[in-house]
Amino acid sequence: MPLQDDTSHHPIGVFDSGIGGLTVVAALQKHLPHENIIYIGDTARVPYGGKSQATVTRYSQEITTLLLAEKAKMIVIACNTASALALPTLTNFYPLPIHGVIEPGAFAAVKATRNGRIGVIGTRATITSQAYQETIYRFSPNVHVLSSACPLLVPLVEEGLFEDDITRRILERYLEPMLLEGIDTLVLGCTHYPLLKKLITHIIGPYVTLVDSAENCAMAVESLLAKNHLARHGTPSTDLEVLLTDTSEDFLHIAARALQIKITKIRISSLE
Amino acid sequence: MPLQDDTSHHPIGVFDSGIGGLTVVAALQKHLPHENIIYIGDTARVPYGGKSQATVTRYSQEITTLLLAEKAKMIVIACNTASALALPTLTNFYPLPIHGVIEPGAFAAVKATRNGRIGVIGTRATITSQAYQETIYRFSPNVHVLSSACPLLVPLVEEGLFEDDITRRILERYLEPMLLEGIDTLVLGCTHYPLLKKLITHIIGPYVTLVDSAENCAMAVESLLAKNHLARHGTPSTDLEVLLTDTSEDFLHIAARALQIKITKIRISSLE
Repeated sequence: MPLQDDTSHHPIGVFDSGIGGLTVVAALQKHLPHENIIYIGDTARVPYGGKSQATVTRYSQEITTLLLAEKAKMIVIACNTASALALPTLTNFYPLPIHGVIEPGAFAAVKATRNGRIGVIGTRATITSQAYQETIYRFSPNVHVLSSACPLLVPLVEEGLFEDDITRRILERYLEPMLLEGIDTLVLGCTHYPLLKKLITHIIGPYVTLVDSAENCAMAVESLLAKNHLARHGTPSTDLEVLLTDTSEDFLHIAARALQIKITKIRISSLE
Repeated sequence: MPLQDDTSHHPIGVFDSGIGGLTVVAALQKHLPHENIIYIGDTARVPYGGKSQATVTRYSQEITTLLLAEKAKMIVIACNTASALALPTLTNFYPLPIHGVIEPGAFAAVKATRNGRIGVIGTRATITSQAYQETIYRFSPNVHVLSSACPLLVPLVEEGLFEDDITRRILERYLEPMLLEGIDTLVLGCTHYPLLKKLITHIIGPYVTLVDSAENCAMAVESLLAKNHLARHGTPSTDLEVLLTDTSEDFLHIAARALQIKITKIRISSLE
């Protein structure tokens, strides 16, 4: 049963382990300019990418409960690791629409590939979970998926080294084996990675299609809101409230500037 | 008042945000071969280096309480960030000897310098706290301290890239400005960094003295145990129990191998 229409003015609740999920917020604002957004970054426990399924699921439940208290009308898990490890549990546990970033990215990759060879990059936990691989095979069993865990990219992005020579060298090391295997499509399986788009595009060249799961997630959220009669109409809203579980404002401002996002309000709230 | 002698067979409780503090354990085992050790790595919330004083202090209190439940006779904070941000609170809060890694490193640096120019490298939180700078000035007000936050080193160490060309280039970028300023002593202000000793020594050359706070901390712990009548005598013990707050065994095994540490028992225990 769809939720009541009068909740349509409530915000979309978006969360990530840290600040990286703002790339999803930027895509949501572009596709859904009428929606208010509340974003939680779990900066007290960032990063999730090297942690276990049990721990990431527990953290994701705590954050989702917090978003419910903020009257979120739906939840977007703007974190590939949490989408990969916690989505099924969250969907069973909470009575509102919840969307992750894996399925939209996987679907877009299957649509984009011409030679059936797709590369996926992400955190160690995302890649180990095989979530992208399994979702892609579900859409298209004959596709060949090559994946690579890229644990150094998140720290480099958080330092703001989006176009640094060291970032380029590390990216080359991660990407070249997949390029040699002939991928024609590359999924950015971590919400930090769109900030490296310029360097990645330069390395993979014009014949490999880049799939940005943030962008595809925003389009999927648009359909989900419509289907559940939850879309907000009227004047465009740019309300974006950011709640962090610890002070970590440096990277917040770097990312907001790079993504041209305007934050309406910042709150810090310890989880305990 | 010293604690009772009969607690001398209890373990030394050592903690770190993650696995890096095993460098302190290796030094303790070398200097104090009679002591049992219990080590807690807060891998569910690692790293501490970019987090706030309030958060790091709260985490450190939770871990110390856990070590007390494990009958630790004293606490060694084998984490520069927690030593810099949480030591005064822990010392006020708990009725047993607690030792951090900052003071021993600062003291050793003051003894080592010939030209009065000391470099300190550490996490962003450690460097921002000014804990090394203030401690060094307390020992010797005329020394000039240059410090540099090196946030990319911990991720590189956790990937096991101890001698990689990329690690060398990042280290050069962090160290060269301090070398140009004429430092003759460099403090490794993070427990991960001793694993980079070989590369760092190569970059700084033979005229700069390297101060490893792990090594100096072990010597300070030796005095503290003797002063409090807590030293264990008898047959050498190599009991080392490791308790992690999340599964993260990859780096545990890399570090244990690199440091030639033998772990007797590993337990995983969620904090909640």
